[in-house]
Amino acid sequence: MSVVRYPTAISPIKNQGVQDRHTHRGMRLEADINDTNAYYRECDKALIYKKPTPVQVVHVDYPARNKAKIVEAYYKTPSTTDYNGVYRGRYIDFEAKETKNKSQFPIGIVHPHQIQHLKKVQLHGGIGFFIVRFTSYNETYLIDAPLMIQAIERTTRSSISYSWFQKNGHQIQEGYIPRLDYLRIVDQIYFKEENS
Amino acid sequence: MSVVRYPTAISPIKNQGVQDRHTHRGMRLEADINDTNAYYRECDKALIYKKPTPVQVVHVDYPARNKAKIVEAYYKTPSTTDYNGVYRGRYIDFEAKETKNKSQFPIGIVHPHQIQHLKKVQLHGGIGFFIVRFTSYNETYLIDAPLMIQAIERTTRSSISYSWFQKNGHQIQEGYIPRLDYLRIVDQIYFKEENS
Repeated sequence: MSVVRYPTAISPIKNQGVQDRHTHRGMRLEADINDTNAYYRECDKALIYKKPTPVQVVHVDYPARNKAKIVEAYYKTPSTTDYNGVYRGRYIDFEAKETKNKSQFPIGIVHPHQIQHLKKVQLHGGIGFFIVRFTSYNETYLIDAPLMIQAIERTTRSSISYSWFQKNGHQIQEGYIPRLDYLRIVDQIYFKEENS
Repeated sequence: MSVVRYPTAISPIKNQGVQDRHTHRGMRLEADINDTNAYYRECDKALIYKKPTPVQVVHVDYPARNKAKIVEAYYKTPSTTDYNGVYRGRYIDFEAKETKNKSQFPIGIVHPHQIQHLKKVQLHGGIGFFIVRFTSYNETYLIDAPLMIQAIERTTRSSISYSWFQKNGHQIQEGYIPRLDYLRIVDQIYFKEENS
């Protein structure tokens, strides 16, 4: 993992109250998924967490005995996706991305190491997918990782069209509790036989 | 997750060369497991990572455009175990602990939330275990999580005896590559039927 500039991805969310969520549309997806995962854990539906953001600690002060204060650190590029866990006995692994773009999903916001990681998830028999939100429409799609990776690797363009997601993705219903019931889609796609 | 004092658990490892590992016995287990997981990933045997240590970021400076420097942060108590991933299609989740004590494993070094988390792993059909090293003997054991949790919850004492681990644990062979081939034990315990 290399140290990178990680401009404003984290801190704005922390200071963000529930009431002004809509003014920070770009950061809502992560909060919605975290709320949903907390709900899934609470009702013992699944055990899925967001991994902590990796930080390269350079210097730690000890202003008092046994009290460690990190005074110099940098955000690192994660080597994996953001979310993983277990559901119905299966390993679950996914990455969430959102775009304000109305007609295109820019491929560049998916990191190459995330693609590599999701390929490995498939290789080892896990369930891997992307959750992609088009914030302009407030539409959120779940897309099977192998399918989306194929689209990314086959195109010569720098983006995938919104209509591709309408055709190949599965729209996730938004609600109050849970905010984003993506496991309903996971049931449909990955547990077909058990459901029927 | 609450902010805690996290005295010297992380930083010493970072500045530690390979040649002086033996002088830092207390920190070797994590390094051994990380090396082993990197080997497992390299040869496509399993996809298992240590989660980043969670950090509560309080203040970030931007000395240059797009360059974020964390100038105040604190270590947090992780809400889960340290390691998870996928192996042979199954969800894997474990915690690693080591003790210098020659006759007892102090229960206090296992956090209650880690016990709760590993119970949930079992509930959802994942494979959960502990890796425990007695550094005085340089012996490392893999213990099924439900079995060890039962021992922790049944005893009225503050520790579990070394002999309990000899009887109920499975010693992990140490080697050069991989350093700690714990998946061999996982095969024996959790994939009995497929192996025979």
